[in-house]
Amino acid sequence: MDSKGWTSWFPVLRWSRGYGRPQMAGDLTAAAVLTLLLIPQSLAYALLAGMPAVTGLYAAMLPLVVYALMGTSPVLGVGPAALRSIMSLAAVGAVASAGSAEFVATSALLALLVGALLLLMGTLRMGFIASFLSTPVLSGFVTASGLLIGMSQFTHLLGTPLASGNLWVFLNSLWQQAAQAQGLTVAVATGALLALWATKRWLKALLSRLGLPPGAADLVAKAAPLLVMLAAIALTSVLGWADRGLAVVGDIPQGLPALAMGALLNVSPGTVQALLLPALLIAMLTFVEQISIVQGLAAKRRERVNPSAEMRAMGGANLAAGFTGAFAVGASFSRSVVLHEGGARTPTAGLLAALLLALTALFFTPWLRDLPLAVLAASIVMALGSLIDLRGFSKSWRISRADFAAHALTFAVTLLVDLVSGLMTGVVVSLLMHLWISSRPHIAVVGNVPGTEHYRNVLRHEVVTHPNVLGLRVDESLFFANARYLEDHVAEAVAAADPGLRHVVLQCTAVNDIDASALDSLVVIMQRLSDQGIALHLSEVKGPVMDRLQRTDFLQQLSGQVFLTHHQAITALAQD
Amino acid sequence: MDSKGWTSWFPVLRWSRGYGRPQMAGDLTAAAVLTLLLIPQSLAYALLAGMPAVTGLYAAMLPLVVYALMGTSPVLGVGPAALRSIMSLAAVGAVASAGSAEFVATSALLALLVGALLLLMGTLRMGFIASFLSTPVLSGFVTASGLLIGMSQFTHLLGTPLASGNLWVFLNSLWQQAAQAQGLTVAVATGALLALWATKRWLKALLSRLGLPPGAADLVAKAAPLLVMLAAIALTSVLGWADRGLAVVGDIPQGLPALAMGALLNVSPGTVQALLLPALLIAMLTFVEQISIVQGLAAKRRERVNPSAEMRAMGGANLAAGFTGAFAVGASFSRSVVLHEGGARTPTAGLLAALLLALTALFFTPWLRDLPLAVLAASIVMALGSLIDLRGFSKSWRISRADFAAHALTFAVTLLVDLVSGLMTGVVVSLLMHLWISSRPHIAVVGNVPGTEHYRNVLRHEVVTHPNVLGLRVDESLFFANARYLEDHVAEAVAAADPGLRHVVLQCTAVNDIDASALDSLVVIMQRLSDQGIALHLSEVKGPVMDRLQRTDFLQQLSGQVFLTHHQAITALAQD
Repeated sequence: MDSKGWTSWFPVLRWSRGYGRPQMAGDLTAAAVLTLLLIPQSLAYALLAGMPAVTGLYAAMLPLVVYALMGTSPVLGVGPAALRSIMSLAAVGAVASAGSAEFVATSALLALLVGALLLLMGTLRMGFIASFLSTPVLSGFVTASGLLIGMSQFTHLLGTPLASGNLWVFLNSLWQQAAQAQGLTVAVATGALLALWATKRWLKALLSRLGLPPGAADLVAKAAPLLVMLAAIALTSVLGWADRGLAVVGDIPQGLPALAMGALLNVSPGTVQALLLPALLIAMLTFVEQISIVQGLAAKRRERVNPSAEMRAMGGANLAAGFTGAFAVGASFSRSVVLHEGGARTPTAGLLAALLLALTALFFTPWLRDLPLAVLAASIVMALGSLIDLRGFSKSWRISRADFAAHALTFAVTLLVDLVSGLMTGVVVSLLMHLWISSRPHIAVVGNVPGTEHYRNVLRHEVVTHPNVLGLRVDESLFFANARYLEDHVAEAVAAADPGLRHVVLQCTAVNDIDASALDSLVVIMQRLSDQGIALHLSEVKGPVMDRLQRTDFLQQLSGQVFLTHHQAITALAQD
Repeated sequence: MDSKGWTSWFPVLRWSRGYGRPQMAGDLTAAAVLTLLLIPQSLAYALLAGMPAVTGLYAAMLPLVVYALMGTSPVLGVGPAALRSIMSLAAVGAVASAGSAEFVATSALLALLVGALLLLMGTLRMGFIASFLSTPVLSGFVTASGLLIGMSQFTHLLGTPLASGNLWVFLNSLWQQAAQAQGLTVAVATGALLALWATKRWLKALLSRLGLPPGAADLVAKAAPLLVMLAAIALTSVLGWADRGLAVVGDIPQGLPALAMGALLNVSPGTVQALLLPALLIAMLTFVEQISIVQGLAAKRRERVNPSAEMRAMGGANLAAGFTGAFAVGASFSRSVVLHEGGARTPTAGLLAALLLALTALFFTPWLRDLPLAVLAASIVMALGSLIDLRGFSKSWRISRADFAAHALTFAVTLLVDLVSGLMTGVVVSLLMHLWISSRPHIAVVGNVPGTEHYRNVLRHEVVTHPNVLGLRVDESLFFANARYLEDHVAEAVAAADPGLRHVVLQCTAVNDIDASALDSLVVIMQRLSDQGIALHLSEVKGPVMDRLQRTDFLQQLSGQVFLTHHQAITALAQD
C-alpha cells in the first residue's frame, strides 16, 4: 500500500500532522462532556444487550480508539447504542441462554461478524447496499424497536422476570407476572423516571435562574443522568436496599479489558452461521445510522465525508469491541451532538474520552456496585422518545400506498414476530418493490407530430401513424431486469397492431446501455418478428450501445436496418 | 370466481368448445410421436433424479393432464427434464440417503414445493422475479449442469459407484474407482453410445435412400432411442447379461400411480425448510425455460401467451407430479418441438400422450425389466449437447466484463461447489449488479447553450454557467435506491463548486416519480444546504411529482422556489 492508501485507511496520519494546542483545548472539553454521558449510557446499553455491565465500558473504550485512527469525522459518538444492543440481545438470545458465559462469548462473536462485514463492504465500496433500507422501512423498524426496548426494561422496572421477544409474549408474561412486581423496585424505578424527566425538563433553566453561567448550567444538565445514578447509588448503599431485594449491578471487575480470543474459539460453526444474517442486518443498520449522523454534522461543519472510509472505521470499531469481549457498537446521535457542541476538532476527542473511560474502569468501578438496575432501565426508557415516531405513518400514507405498506408491514412484523424478521421483511419488501419497478420500463408507441420531425406517444398527442410500421420508444437502458418485459411488450404491441404490419422500429433515444441479456432478447424479438414476416429496425442508437452491438454479430443478423433518426426510418419504411 | 376467472385458470373451458375431428387428427399424430420420445426419456430422467424408473412415467402422466387443463400452449412438452432431475437429485440428496424410501418421498415433496411456489407466483403475477436469472448466469449454470449430468452418469457407464456432486469429488472418485470398472457394462455403454450417435446422425438419410417416404423416415429416426433400448433389452434378456453383473432397471410395478399422501406426511418440518431455497431456484429456472419455449413457439404459431397462466399451469403440473410420488417436472424443448412439428392443435395432444403412457404403465412395464442402466445413461449423455454451450463465454466477454464475470462465476461455483450454490451465486451477483446500477443514476451539472433556452451537460457541451448558481439535472426517477446517492452527489457537487455558491437548482425533467425516501433525502439536502447558506430550488417538476410534493409540507419548508422552466430559474437567480 502506498502512502495515499495508508492515509485513506488511517486518516489519523493526515490530521495528526497539524495537531496542536488549539485543537487540544476543544477536544479535551468535548471528551469530558462525552465521558459524563458515556458512563451511564454504556452501563444501560450493556444491560439492554443482556451483557455484564463492565462490557458496556469495554464497548466504548477500544472502539473509540480504533474509530479515532480510521474514521474521518471528529464528532461521531462511537460506542454502545440502543438499537444495536437490543438486536444483539435478540440475535444472541436465539442461540445461547441469557446470562451464560456462552452468551457473553457469542455477543462478542456477533460484534466481530458485524465488524468483519462492515470492513469487507467498506473495502469493496458496497455502501450502496444500505440504500435498500428505505426511509419507511427504517422508520417502521426503529419505532417498533423502541417499543420492544421499552418492554424489555419492564423486567428491571418491576423487579420480576418478564419475556419480551415480541408484543404477544410480553403481554402474556406481564399478565401472569404483574402481581409479582416488587414494591421497592417499582418505587425506585418511578423515582428515577421522575428525577430523570424533571432534570431533563427543568434543571438547565433552574440553574440559569440561580445565576450559573449558561455553559456550566448546560454541563450540569448533561451530567444529570450520571448525578441521578450517583444519588441512587448513595441511597441504595446507605439504606441497604440491595439486601431488601433491589437488584443492583453488583461487583464489576476492575481493570482494562483483556483480548477475549479464548472464549471466541469455543463457539461452534453452526452458531456463526446462525448469526450471519443478523450480523448483516446490524451492519447495514449501523452504516445507515452512522452515515446520516456523519453527513448531517459534516454539512454543518463544511467537512467532506468518505462513506467507504466511515464503513471501514466502524468495521474496525466493531472488531475492537468483539476482541475485547464486548457487544456490537454503532454511532449515537445524542453523543455525536455532544461532541460537536462541546467543540471537538479532531478524532482525538474520542481518544481522550477512551482514556477517561479507562481511568473509570481502573479505579471507579467499585463505586458502581450498588447502582440499581431499575435506575439504568429508567434511563433507557427516558431515551426512547428519539426512536418512536408514530407521525411517520401518516407521512408515508400521504406520499404513497406502497411506502405506507412497507412502513406498516415492517412495524407489524418487528413488533409481533421479532426484530430480525421485521427488518428482513422490510428489506425484502423494498427489494421486491424495486425489482417490480425496474423490470417494467416505460415503452410508448410513438407517431409523427404533423409538420415536424418529432415523434410522440400516441396516447398523449395527436400524431400520425402508418399501418405497416410500428414505432416503439423505450424509456430506459436495456438490461437483464427488463429484457424479458421488452420481449413480452413487443409481442403484445405487435399482436394488437394492424395485421398489415411489416416493420417494427425501436427508437433507442433513452437507451444508454445494453447488456448480454438484453441483446439476447433483441435477437429473440427479431426472430419471432421474422417468423411473422416482420422486420426489426433500430433508430437513434447511442454511441456506446452501437459499440456493443458491433462487437457481436447482432447487426449482421438484423432483419432490418439501423437508422440515424426515427424520422428517416418512418419516411423510408412507410412507403414499403 | 366468475366465468372469465374460470377460463383464465382453466383455458380448456375455452378451446374445448370448438373441438372436432380436424383438431383431433393433428393431436393424435403428435401424441403418438411424443410418446415414442417420452418412454425412454422419462426412464432416463428418473435415473438421473435418483428415483425408481416407474416414477419417470408418473412424472409424465398426470402433469401432462393438468397442464392440458390449465396451460395455454398446445405444444409445451411437460414432464421429466434433465436440469430439474439433477437439481432434484442434488437438493434431495442433501437431506435423504440415495435409494431410501425417504429419498423417494422427499423428491415428491420437492415437486410439491416447486408446484406450490409456481402456483403462488403465478397467482400474484410475479413472473418478473425470473428476470433476475440473466442470460449469462443461465448460460453458465446450464453449461456447468450439463457437465455435472455427464459426470453423474459415469456410475452407470462404468458399472461402479462414483460420487459426482462437483468436479473435485467426481475426479477424486474416478481416480480411485476407475480400476473397478466392469467390462461388460463398459462394452454395453459404448455400444449404446455408438448406436445412438449413428442413428441420430445417419438413420433418417439412410431410410430415405432406402425409399421410405420422408414422414415415415422421420418417425423411425425419432423412435431410434426407443429402438436402441428395445434391442438392448432383447440382447440382455437372451444373453443373460443381468446375471453376469450388468445393472438393469429391474421389476417395475405395473399399474397407475396412487396418490402418495401417506409418505409425504412423514417428512419433517426441517426437511421442508431445507428444501425451500432449492425449490425456489427450481421454480424460477422452470419458469424461465418454459416461457422461452412457449413464447418462441407461440411466435411461430401466431398465438398469444399469458405468462401468469403458464406459471400456474406448471405449478399445477408439479403438484400433480408430487402427489403421484414423482419428482419435479418442467418443459422439454425437444419434446415441445416434436409436438409442434407433429401437428398438435390443442393441449389434447398432451392428454392423449398421457393416455398412451398410462397404457404403457398398465401393460408394458414387465418388458422393461431387462433394460440396462448403461443404455439409459448413454441416452442421457447423448442429449447433453443441447445444454453445454462453451461459445457463450466468448460472447459474454465481448459484450461486457460484468456479464462475463457473472457468467464465469456461476459456471465455476456450479461446477466446483454444487448446483444450488452455483445458481444462487448467479442470482445474487445479478441482483448486486442491478442494485449497483440503479443506485447511481446519471446526474449532470448543466449550463446554458449560448443564445438558446437549452441547458446541457457542462462536460459535453460549450455552455455558460454562473458562479453563484449550480444547475443539476437528474436523469432518473427518485426513489429509495438512489436517494442516498443523490444526497452524496449534491454534497460533492457543492463542495467542488465555487465558494460564492448561493443557489442549487435541481432540474427535474426526467423525474417521473418520487417516493418517501427520496422526499426525505430532498429535505436533508435542503437542510444541509441551508446550513451552508445555500438555497435549494426545483425546476420543470412534472405533474405527478408536484402532486406528491403538495401532499407533504416539503414546499412550505423549501428554502428556494419551484420554477416552471430551468431557464427561468437561472435567469432569476443569476442576478442574485
